[in-house]
Amino acid sequence: MSDAAASAGRRGRSARRERRKAGPGGLSTPYITRGIPVFEVLSDEGAEKIEAQTDRILAEIGIEFREAPEVLKLWKDAGADVDGERVRFPKGMLQELIKTAPSQFTQHARNPARNVEIGGKNLVLAPVYGPPFVTDLDQGRRYGTIEDFRNFVKLAYLSPWLHHSGGTVCEPVDLPVNKRHFDMVYSHIKYSDKPFMGSVTAPERAEDSVKMAQITFGEDFVDQNCVMIQLINANSPLVFDATMLGALQVYAKHNQACIVSPFILAGAMSPVTVAGTLSQVLAEALAGCALTQLIRPGAPVVFGAFVSSISMQSGAPTFGSPEGSLLLNGAAKLARRHGLPFRSGGSFTASKLPDAQAAQESAQTITATVQSGVNFALHSAGWLEGGLCSSYEKFVMDSDQLGMMHVLAKGIDISDEAMAMDALQEVGPGGHFLGAAHTQRNFESAFYRSAIADNNSYEQWLADGELDAAKRANSLWKEQLRAYSGPELDPAIDEALLTFIAERKASFPDSNV
Amino acid sequence: MSDAAASAGRRGRSARRERRKAGPGGLSTPYITRGIPVFEVLSDEGAEKIEAQTDRILAEIGIEFREAPEVLKLWKDAGADVDGERVRFPKGMLQELIKTAPSQFTQHARNPARNVEIGGKNLVLAPVYGPPFVTDLDQGRRYGTIEDFRNFVKLAYLSPWLHHSGGTVCEPVDLPVNKRHFDMVYSHIKYSDKPFMGSVTAPERAEDSVKMAQITFGEDFVDQNCVMIQLINANSPLVFDATMLGALQVYAKHNQACIVSPFILAGAMSPVTVAGTLSQVLAEALAGCALTQLIRPGAPVVFGAFVSSISMQSGAPTFGSPEGSLLLNGAAKLARRHGLPFRSGGSFTASKLPDAQAAQESAQTITATVQSGVNFALHSAGWLEGGLCSSYEKFVMDSDQLGMMHVLAKGIDISDEAMAMDALQEVGPGGHFLGAAHTQRNFESAFYRSAIADNNSYEQWLADGELDAAKRANSLWKEQLRAYSGPELDPAIDEALLTFIAERKASFPDSNV
Repeated sequence: MSDAAASAGRRGRSARRERRKAGPGGLSTPYITRGIPVFEVLSDEGAEKIEAQTDRILAEIGIEFREAPEVLKLWKDAGADVDGERVRFPKGMLQELIKTAPSQFTQHARNPARNVEIGGKNLVLAPVYGPPFVTDLDQGRRYGTIEDFRNFVKLAYLSPWLHHSGGTVCEPVDLPVNKRHFDMVYSHIKYSDKPFMGSVTAPERAEDSVKMAQITFGEDFVDQNCVMIQLINANSPLVFDATMLGALQVYAKHNQACIVSPFILAGAMSPVTVAGTLSQVLAEALAGCALTQLIRPGAPVVFGAFVSSISMQSGAPTFGSPEGSLLLNGAAKLARRHGLPFRSGGSFTASKLPDAQAAQESAQTITATVQSGVNFALHSAGWLEGGLCSSYEKFVMDSDQLGMMHVLAKGIDISDEAMAMDALQEVGPGGHFLGAAHTQRNFESAFYRSAIADNNSYEQWLADGELDAAKRANSLWKEQLRAYSGPELDPAIDEALLTFIAERKASFPDSNV
Repeated sequence: MSDAAASAGRRGRSARRERRKAGPGGLSTPYITRGIPVFEVLSDEGAEKIEAQTDRILAEIGIEFREAPEVLKLWKDAGADVDGERVRFPKGMLQELIKTAPSQFTQHARNPARNVEIGGKNLVLAPVYGPPFVTDLDQGRRYGTIEDFRNFVKLAYLSPWLHHSGGTVCEPVDLPVNKRHFDMVYSHIKYSDKPFMGSVTAPERAEDSVKMAQITFGEDFVDQNCVMIQLINANSPLVFDATMLGALQVYAKHNQACIVSPFILAGAMSPVTVAGTLSQVLAEALAGCALTQLIRPGAPVVFGAFVSSISMQSGAPTFGSPEGSLLLNGAAKLARRHGLPFRSGGSFTASKLPDAQAAQESAQTITATVQSGVNFALHSAGWLEGGLCSSYEKFVMDSDQLGMMHVLAKGIDISDEAMAMDALQEVGPGGHFLGAAHTQRNFESAFYRSAIADNNSYEQWLADGELDAAKRANSLWKEQLRAYSGPELDPAIDEALLTFIAERKASFPDSNV
């Protein structure tokens, strides 16, 4: 069956069993495998036109690799035209290089039941990445701390709908810039057993991240398997800077996955049109992805695209815009045509509150994410204020919506049990299905249960205190943190990690640059 | 070009010209014609399995047509098996009957520039239908009045993104039940020039609606053209009641469009599964649509499906659920396979406030509406509280999102101007596109401008009063009503309508049944 058909009888008792054996929140599979087709708004003709323009961009305009002489040497040796820091690529060169990259790979978690498959029909959902601020309804907006960081790691661990612990769930601004990566990576390993991301803010911090992974997984294992995935942004338009290139080289060398992501707000960092922007996205992604293969052929790499638009009136970034959805959808098709896993999307918004704007914009982006065939989605939960702020309330609201996305991605079950002919025969015209045998067999797993939506009557809602969704979310995340109980971590590994961190921290002075 | 390609140069100056010549709010086309493909989550195999089950439902279980002997006679004469009020249909009978129904038709507006095409690649967006209550942030929730009714007609008229004036935008509870249809139909004709809907609550009220349309459009014109579209709900499961059948007969006889809509909350009025529900939806829709063709072959009719689910814990209706999106999407495919225009979707929510829940649920349903290939969408703006309440704030919030849906539905422009190669060449690596000639040529029409989203910095947002989206929407609808200026109505027609209404109202006593 081409639909996501559960075999007859899978629902009911066996579904309950599946939920029981699952981890926190009842997760039975550690990632989404889409049962619905990919939605494509870009025609093949459109994709070909864009690819032809990308070839011209790469050959005529080229890309700059700044303050990275070793990268320029790699390009030169590979046959590119290197002019200062500008590199131009003969037609087809990058497409040839990326052929050694896997179209799908496993990122291992320290709990193997939580390994994720990145690529193909799979979608891995990870939390927000990068905000310096955090906010909640009680304390309002303030700089993030390591306590906030740990809280978001715990909330991601507890969510049955997040498959990944992510990376910089917020910036722990209370720790020195040059040492906070130790506490961040340690928090992911300690407070969660889901897969995670390493530091990219300096080559030595990338090496520290790899070392901590080696302590956790074993050196040989890390060399042969992907245990970390990293976000490497292009400095769009058409530039890669020294910091990102430094991290990329460390991770590719160690066989760890890079997500090479043009970071584009169309109209400012790319042309003001979807098609023009897509041709630039493809050029940047191809160049960065190909570079990983020059460093270590076969290293896992993901075609990334952080794409939205700006307000042409104020210049402010906008999110959840229809143009953003079209960009995401088009870029996904380009990645598929190049045989690479694709990262994009999330639950974006420019709103400062977990209000209707936040929900509407996030719903638009996460739906586009699921339908367009994204394989890895950062920012799936908690993103607020254009990515400047991690919101506790929005984290659990987004997570709830991710649960709905799991159902949507399954598609329509057309098994005999789902056809429910016996219910129709039993009930007949004018009857009621609540008491039907088929309903009794299936009601428990029938419909997604939202943790936040209030579907009660107006009168009941009044009696419950007239709460809006944000206030209900406020209770929910506090309840979850109170109930948090972490996964086991081998005490020997824990001690080795803490010893490594203490020694490394003591070996150089704190700094905030 | 298979993408929605504007020819080079269409943007910029000509786009500005288009906006100027358009009606209120800059609408340049009176409905959406999709440039994106339809998204189908149901496979052909799944559709065939559902259709086979529908044949069995129709032949073995049948459908009841209650207190409508003339309908039973029609079915008997047509060869159906009539047993009391239960009618069973030989395989293929209904499919044969609906072949006389048009796959696409024009609903005429009194302003011909606002005529809508219902069917094919077109989508017509209409406001909320049916709520007894209205609410706004200032006055809170209360029963609707004719003043509220007029206000919503005005807001729909002013929205560039609503193509239709709708029907019962709220119930004017201050008017007697048996006479309020006069004021409702008159308000649509007087305060808007967009197409509208007639009354279905009794056959004589349907006749009154037709008479008012005849005064407005001319008797012959009405007989030969669709000028009204009506909502005929099935009393699911598998029942049509006398009220709806009475209205259906009046409108079909007068060549006016019926939307035959199973009204289904899955789990209560249909099986607890998507596939089972779809087989029932198809049975009910086919029966109702075929009946219109028995009455007047060739009369316009729309395959409708109001579908959502219930909470299996509380029994309360739920909206914006993933199961609702799958139902909508599957039903759209079934309608297409039967060559009928399709009505479904809107901006649904169970929330009692224009909050994050409302926005998230509405975003999910309206996106499914646009992508699934819906041709006519009631409830596109203003729906709150499971349809019990029309919200002023949500009306303008939804309308804003409909604007985004217009952009999404266009797809990706791959014209040479949209490819923007000159911008990429002009700017180059590390540059900025804001000042590029291509950006200057295109910025004005480049991105959708939300009337409600706040994309400003946190600091600016603080300075602006820390408003959430609902509060900004509150200012917006009040501004719009203040600025409302209605369309011209021929004074002779206006007088004839008022005279007809006065005479009819005087001819029978007020009643609230």
